[in-house]
Amino acid sequence: MAKGSSVLTPVVTVDRGSSQPLHSQVYRSLRNAISTGVLRPGQRVPSSRAMGIELNVSRITILEAYGQLLAEGYFKSSRGAGTFVSSSLPEYLTQVGRPVNGRTPRTSGPRPVARRALQFPTLPMTPWRYGLGAFAVHQPAFEEFPYAIWSRLVTHHSKDPNAHAIHCIDPLGSRRFREAICEYLRTARAVHCEPEQVMIVSGSQQALQITANVLFDPGDAVWMEEPGYLLARNVFTAAGCCQIPVPVDDQGLNVEVGVTRCPQARAAYVTPSHQYPLGSAMSAGRRLQLLNWAQRNGAWIIEDDYDSEYRFESAPISSLQGLDNERRVIYIGTFSKVLFASLRLGYIVVPPDLVERFSAVRHAMDIFPPYLFQEVIADFMREGHFARHIRRMRQLYSERRMVLVEQLRSTFGNTLEIHGAEAGMHLAVTFPAELDDVAIAERAAELGLWLFPLSGSYMTKNARKGLVLGYGNVAAQAIPGAVEKLRTAIASV
Amino acid sequence: MAKGSSVLTPVVTVDRGSSQPLHSQVYRSLRNAISTGVLRPGQRVPSSRAMGIELNVSRITILEAYGQLLAEGYFKSSRGAGTFVSSSLPEYLTQVGRPVNGRTPRTSGPRPVARRALQFPTLPMTPWRYGLGAFAVHQPAFEEFPYAIWSRLVTHHSKDPNAHAIHCIDPLGSRRFREAICEYLRTARAVHCEPEQVMIVSGSQQALQITANVLFDPGDAVWMEEPGYLLARNVFTAAGCCQIPVPVDDQGLNVEVGVTRCPQARAAYVTPSHQYPLGSAMSAGRRLQLLNWAQRNGAWIIEDDYDSEYRFESAPISSLQGLDNERRVIYIGTFSKVLFASLRLGYIVVPPDLVERFSAVRHAMDIFPPYLFQEVIADFMREGHFARHIRRMRQLYSERRMVLVEQLRSTFGNTLEIHGAEAGMHLAVTFPAELDDVAIAERAAELGLWLFPLSGSYMTKNARKGLVLGYGNVAAQAIPGAVEKLRTAIASV
Repeated sequence: MAKGSSVLTPVVTVDRGSSQPLHSQVYRSLRNAISTGVLRPGQRVPSSRAMGIELNVSRITILEAYGQLLAEGYFKSSRGAGTFVSSSLPEYLTQVGRPVNGRTPRTSGPRPVARRALQFPTLPMTPWRYGLGAFAVHQPAFEEFPYAIWSRLVTHHSKDPNAHAIHCIDPLGSRRFREAICEYLRTARAVHCEPEQVMIVSGSQQALQITANVLFDPGDAVWMEEPGYLLARNVFTAAGCCQIPVPVDDQGLNVEVGVTRCPQARAAYVTPSHQYPLGSAMSAGRRLQLLNWAQRNGAWIIEDDYDSEYRFESAPISSLQGLDNERRVIYIGTFSKVLFASLRLGYIVVPPDLVERFSAVRHAMDIFPPYLFQEVIADFMREGHFARHIRRMRQLYSERRMVLVEQLRSTFGNTLEIHGAEAGMHLAVTFPAELDDVAIAERAAELGLWLFPLSGSYMTKNARKGLVLGYGNVAAQAIPGAVEKLRTAIASV
Repeated sequence: MAKGSSVLTPVVTVDRGSSQPLHSQVYRSLRNAISTGVLRPGQRVPSSRAMGIELNVSRITILEAYGQLLAEGYFKSSRGAGTFVSSSLPEYLTQVGRPVNGRTPRTSGPRPVARRALQFPTLPMTPWRYGLGAFAVHQPAFEEFPYAIWSRLVTHHSKDPNAHAIHCIDPLGSRRFREAICEYLRTARAVHCEPEQVMIVSGSQQALQITANVLFDPGDAVWMEEPGYLLARNVFTAAGCCQIPVPVDDQGLNVEVGVTRCPQARAAYVTPSHQYPLGSAMSAGRRLQLLNWAQRNGAWIIEDDYDSEYRFESAPISSLQGLDNERRVIYIGTFSKVLFASLRLGYIVVPPDLVERFSAVRHAMDIFPPYLFQEVIADFMREGHFARHIRRMRQLYSERRMVLVEQLRSTFGNTLEIHGAEAGMHLAVTFPAELDDVAIAERAAELGLWLFPLSGSYMTKNARKGLVLGYGNVAAQAIPGAVEKLRTAIASV
């Protein structure tokens, strides 16, 4: 065993010039640490030996101080286990939040924050955002994840990591990982890319944040899908962008309306493979129209390809980026849906002439991405587990979707309209405008169902009412029960 | 073995309405994928069976297409191993970067980026930033890290993770981890904190980025240490702040000069435990002056406590935050120096009234931190490994520092002045102004030494010349040789 004590030494000051004896100084210092909440009930304190070494005073001095604290009931000693702050101290001694050092806080002066900070929307504490299970959106089938393979790779890369992998401080991320992503994107998504253009980020949110910093000054216009993805809107709001709502229909973004409303927008934000939340795929005609608009107006396209991997009734649709001859598309992908979100890993395929700018923004933001999961996923891809996992999940989600659609149809008939069930891990249902989708979602949360109200995805007033239902993390046999709860929730508002 | 193929299926389109036979469509599609670089030499292609299932055409059709590609040399088949894109294709067929789909790129229109993006400094490609070994700054002793213990914890948390830990999407981070950090900070750093105030971030850079977004609008003034930490300057530059250089002496930041230059600054950025790069500790008098200024002017203090854990000749100095009665200090810490940087983990202790703002900014930026290392470090702290590791490293770095100081004195005598060797993992040396520290650093990099030129840490013209030497990752026995190389580098410019 290593010789050093494994207990933290509290900050104790001794003043050798003082007339007060050292043991008394140590005693007062520790008592003060307890009474101000620096040391908490039940917390272990270092041995007298370790404390003596730390403060450079004799062990006898420390033993004298500890003895007094034990006698007065501040400390408690347990043979073999060490010395602890007593867990039965009177409350007034350990009251959390009491004035520092016994002084009363002074009246505080102004506490200014930035005007820009007020543009960031505060966090919605809505229940459906935090639940786990039916029908939380964007949750994959956690229990189907190949943890045994994953854990083998994680262990391999953390047991005896090589200093160079640990020391990779490239703001683009690990080269090996970027190569694996390129091979995947070229093959499965028809994206045109080389590793030099790929930047590893902590998910699509950071991808959008970096992109917004590179492309937009306050006041710049950006086309947004209506309805669309709320967290993308938050980024553009914080960046001070003027967001132009452009309606979505069953062919995706209506480019003509965009051109009418704001031809000179700096960019368009789109989810062409599986529009969020309504689920349509952007048609070939609209894709060409969009690219054409961007080329003629010197605009950019931000393609968020967030769950393109799962398409059930036809071959996957290739990316918009792959159609683009002018490198005007910033392509964003994530591992949140195919693996899981708390890995915090995604990527951007950056047009070559913007790589330097993206790198500068990323470097100032958080320098470079963490190493471990980059190496793990690179192996997971190279060894074929990634492709196999996608295929398995596609099969699984296809079943879950089928059961859900059937159950919705048999329970609700034509009172609910179903949208976007051809792909991904979620579908949307819409219902008559007199039903309050927020009230339904609140009622459902009491029943243990997590439903996103569709109306929250709209910027404009004429929102359709409905719900977004994620089925990634709901076993097929649990679906009938969950739909029954949904019926109860709808019936009760 | 799972039934799904582990090879990615390329995007191939078949049009059942076309007069062209299906096998011919598949053939052309694959040939096109090779000629445009979507499929690369040596890349494996799916089996004819898997491809048939994917495209919903008969296996015979696929076999016919594959046969033609094999006959023409595009594919190569290896019995038992599968089919691959031939690795001996003529270069013109696989030329990377050739026009997409054989079309020539059109003349590109304007490609505007934001004015704000131009404020982010582009990355310095200086060699000393990327080297590994003597005397790279901020590198801990990688080889001394307890990988066996670490790997056990990592494996434990990745083998069978519980869905709730994986699903923690709190923008503050894992509650367990925040509790462990609080106990550490209260005990070892005398920081006043509760878990509700702690935000887990990806390192001190993200901490600064979030802080800057909460506190500063463009044009707001901030006091910066002169000389100071370049990467902090980058954040404030990007935020559009007006940075006021305030000189540092052997008592830390000269508060009086700050008050004279810009009394109404919104904040001061300081490294009071071990000033970067000169290494002084801020004196008690200056600390009280600084707090006093902040209280009277409604200003904030950003305390970057980046390597406070290692103090050799006296007890650790407690934090500035712990002295503050008005909760005006934003306290930033990192695991980059005590563990390692590519974990990308640090924390902010946020004044309670700013927690909501910090959370909103963080949520828009990257939502929440990745789960694994939070759980691992929480255990690493709770099981006592963290305190023990710090003690061991303090001993180790103390030895390395002593050897380095002795070696510098015996090699250079009084021609070099040594600063800030009482703490941390680096020291600074200064030398006569006629020596060019950048040229020395460049020459040293050719010899395999990584030295930060001190002059790069100054904002103003009258920079002192010198070098910042990290000794965290240099074994004691390697120091004499490294100092000899340093002598050579200095002598040769």
